[in-house]
Amino acid sequence: MGIFPRFTRLPLKSTFIWSQYSSALSAVGRETSDRALIVSSSQLIQHRCVHSRGLGASPANPGDAPPRLPFSRVTQKDLAFFRTLLPGRSITDPDLLKSSNIDWLKTVQGNSEVLLRPKTTEEVCQILRYCNDRNLAVCPQGGNTGLVGGSVPVFDEIILSTSLMNQVMMFDGISGILTCQAGCVLENLSHYLEEKDFIMPLDLGAKGSCHIGGNVSTNAGGLRLLRYGSLRGTVLGLEVVLADGRVLNCLAALRKDNTGYDLKQLFIGSEGTLGVITAVSILCPRKPKAVNVAFLGCSSFQQLLETFQCCRGMLGEILSAFEFLDASCMKLLEKHLKLTNPITESPFYIVIETAGSNATHDEEKLHNFLEEVMTSSLVTDGTVATEATKIKALWSLRERVTEALTHEGYTYKYDISLPVEKIYDLVQDMRGHLGDMAKNVVGYGHVGDGNLHLNITSPSKDPALLAAIEPYVYEWASKWKGSISAEHGLGLKKRNYIYYSKSSETVALMGSIKAMLDPKGILNPYKTLPDNIH
Amino acid sequence: MGIFPRFTRLPLKSTFIWSQYSSALSAVGRETSDRALIVSSSQLIQHRCVHSRGLGASPANPGDAPPRLPFSRVTQKDLAFFRTLLPGRSITDPDLLKSSNIDWLKTVQGNSEVLLRPKTTEEVCQILRYCNDRNLAVCPQGGNTGLVGGSVPVFDEIILSTSLMNQVMMFDGISGILTCQAGCVLENLSHYLEEKDFIMPLDLGAKGSCHIGGNVSTNAGGLRLLRYGSLRGTVLGLEVVLADGRVLNCLAALRKDNTGYDLKQLFIGSEGTLGVITAVSILCPRKPKAVNVAFLGCSSFQQLLETFQCCRGMLGEILSAFEFLDASCMKLLEKHLKLTNPITESPFYIVIETAGSNATHDEEKLHNFLEEVMTSSLVTDGTVATEATKIKALWSLRERVTEALTHEGYTYKYDISLPVEKIYDLVQDMRGHLGDMAKNVVGYGHVGDGNLHLNITSPSKDPALLAAIEPYVYEWASKWKGSISAEHGLGLKKRNYIYYSKSSETVALMGSIKAMLDPKGILNPYKTLPDNIH
Repeated sequence: MGIFPRFTRLPLKSTFIWSQYSSALSAVGRETSDRALIVSSSQLIQHRCVHSRGLGASPANPGDAPPRLPFSRVTQKDLAFFRTLLPGRSITDPDLLKSSNIDWLKTVQGNSEVLLRPKTTEEVCQILRYCNDRNLAVCPQGGNTGLVGGSVPVFDEIILSTSLMNQVMMFDGISGILTCQAGCVLENLSHYLEEKDFIMPLDLGAKGSCHIGGNVSTNAGGLRLLRYGSLRGTVLGLEVVLADGRVLNCLAALRKDNTGYDLKQLFIGSEGTLGVITAVSILCPRKPKAVNVAFLGCSSFQQLLETFQCCRGMLGEILSAFEFLDASCMKLLEKHLKLTNPITESPFYIVIETAGSNATHDEEKLHNFLEEVMTSSLVTDGTVATEATKIKALWSLRERVTEALTHEGYTYKYDISLPVEKIYDLVQDMRGHLGDMAKNVVGYGHVGDGNLHLNITSPSKDPALLAAIEPYVYEWASKWKGSISAEHGLGLKKRNYIYYSKSSETVALMGSIKAMLDPKGILNPYKTLPDNIH
Repeated sequence: MGIFPRFTRLPLKSTFIWSQYSSALSAVGRETSDRALIVSSSQLIQHRCVHSRGLGASPANPGDAPPRLPFSRVTQKDLAFFRTLLPGRSITDPDLLKSSNIDWLKTVQGNSEVLLRPKTTEEVCQILRYCNDRNLAVCPQGGNTGLVGGSVPVFDEIILSTSLMNQVMMFDGISGILTCQAGCVLENLSHYLEEKDFIMPLDLGAKGSCHIGGNVSTNAGGLRLLRYGSLRGTVLGLEVVLADGRVLNCLAALRKDNTGYDLKQLFIGSEGTLGVITAVSILCPRKPKAVNVAFLGCSSFQQLLETFQCCRGMLGEILSAFEFLDASCMKLLEKHLKLTNPITESPFYIVIETAGSNATHDEEKLHNFLEEVMTSSLVTDGTVATEATKIKALWSLRERVTEALTHEGYTYKYDISLPVEKIYDLVQDMRGHLGDMAKNVVGYGHVGDGNLHLNITSPSKDPALLAAIEPYVYEWASKWKGSISAEHGLGLKKRNYIYYSKSSETVALMGSIKAMLDPKGILNPYKTLPDNIH
């Protein structure tokens, strides 16, 4: 185990080469704000419409940006207002704006001319009241780590960053309830809690830069969902500023409150389109006293599923993660990141984590489970780590797959929820369907949550390949009543594919809620809802 | 332990004497449908208005029914329509309607003339489409076990019962996801799952009659919330019929789905005022292999809190309940139900339940914990049960408090959420505040959830006592940023007290959502939202 590289999180400043795109961006990006530059899909061929009612004024490609809506343009007078309101925190320097205008994957670039950095809820109120009066569009932004183009402006929307709203407001060591501003970085909160013997109920590869407000706005899933559940259960309260500047204070720090409709749920996962989250109350679990990680090999996905079943029975309440990657992922880890496979080669690899309150008991449970799956030949080989650096090394085999993929050329990324027994069928079916067109078709993800990350690589962008993937992959998910976006959200890129997972009545009601809460549509326009809703 | 009576759930047909009320009901109830008979508050003295804007056309007493709204009256033509639509399932016999017109506590009685018992979602659609067109008010009803008058008609609303919608639609033994119709009785679902080695994520005293649809509509809490979280996390999908008969199909059976707004959350806890839930998908935990229950005594609430802290650390992931009752509760159990206190008399009693996957480990953890709290004198005495009937006997000491209270005369019931360290302060403060006016002031509830059940008894209804309790108790909860209804909901009785827990902006937005989804207001009128919202 000692030879493994030190655990690395998702690279926050990606080093993969995208100069071909960035030069295009610098040439085009700033000259036109009437057409967003969507690097990832500028060469896409035309898609079928995803819904019988058609897409109205939508672009030919459902993932492309629609035409700019008739919002006002930012004037000198507007900038003067913002400078007075936020002295030194109203950024207009194009160099400083650059990283806020482009997403982490470098696939969507906006052309905003101003980035606002409020520190207080009152400042957010004033910004939104002003923008709503002036009909100025606003793009709320946390750590800008999203994967669907939801966190960057599409045109010239004003960027409202939560980065300076980073104060912990309260922590109750009896109940484990944390209340903090929306711009707190997830990892900072984890460190803060660790000293108090608690942990955050969610963990993500992007924890070093993502904000808790962004996590809640996107209903982030991540690695601990199997154990601690989704943010819909752990978020106990929110403070939200609505489009017109009104504050909706639902910041209760209570585990139970049945006094009327639970309005905060509207803002969890709505990607900043209904309001700007300014503060969060969240229920935090106790820090486990013992953590173990096992890395196992399986010879078929069926055996992997049986291992999962056995694991849930024998590890029970201490099971905190059950993740998988396939052999193709392992090859990419070895090739691009020089990671070493700690066990014999297998078609499938599993990462199992236990987190419990008694090291002896946990090790015994894990030992019994491993003996069972080894003797019954469900698992062909395996290794276990109990020491922190070794645990991190094993985890990196799962967590760094995303990074390894960026070295492969171009990656088409899909985040699909399916009945758990179906998740790898999609990967195999896709391999057959694409044949030689794809360089790699790889699958990894959260078995315990029925969540597959399907990634398809190609030496460079390939419109014919994309046409073979989409909408095939969405139709596949829809056929099995899955979700076309398990945890990444819809953002800009997937907004028009919503009908593969939601009925037209449901989407229409979403539109009514949007119209009610943000009648001018200034909050994160072009995101989440399909174009035909407007 | 063997001398304990067999475990009994909440009595489904209450035997406590209410003839004084029932005779009044039979005399008055059927003659007038323009004024609801609220037995519990008919003698109340006038309350202060709970909000500066006043209550508009509200009654003098915030818990009383407001005047009947101008809905249509049910005609013979309407009854003919319902008889054709639901042959043999459209009930108009007054004797058969009786139990559906009155709540379990016998405190609210409506005067509905027709009870509809659909079997399918399509039938619910047709009923609601018809009622919406005709402007007929509808009261959706599950097991009618609610405590705030939310599940019975206030006037002549048509009762729409889910009792014949009782089919399990699907169960996935890998993911543990159950999909069923809304009228399945919670206990029946528990039995169904038990055979498959799973359990429901919630458990309630009323499990023998409550419906899962009603549980979801009221966001029921109960005894397992500490371990498995609230229904907001465990409910994965809902099918809902809107007021105008449209079906909203959000019945995904997926752990993760981030495709747009999570509309199903609107219907969880909205008490049937926004739509009628017809089917539910819910995530079920594995059945624990070992269950233990400890019954402990503490000499102060501070020591009880320290025991809770110690318990969370040492029992960790196997802790499934941490409940308490005070000495006054124990006296009532002994006096009225002839239950025996299994330990020496103490000011406070704790029920701790563990549920885990390894009996030896669990017993060892529990043993270590008990040793710690006994040697440090946090706990003065205790007993442990591992065998099913003994476990049930210990649980009955907590679960039958509600029943024991019904023998005391009249009980004023409050269900308050507070920061956990404050929950018993309210009981003590109330004792001082009420002095000799109250016969008993008792506290019990869910320590782990910060949820106190405060009950105040009196030989009979006492307007002066009530005036001393309310709004004092709500002001107290509000002062500590608590909830005036942790798990019982608002229903009819508490609708006008909502402002003690929610801001006027928040309540106004709830009103907008109600107006959007049910513009004629036909669904469960007079419930949940305050009168001034209309």
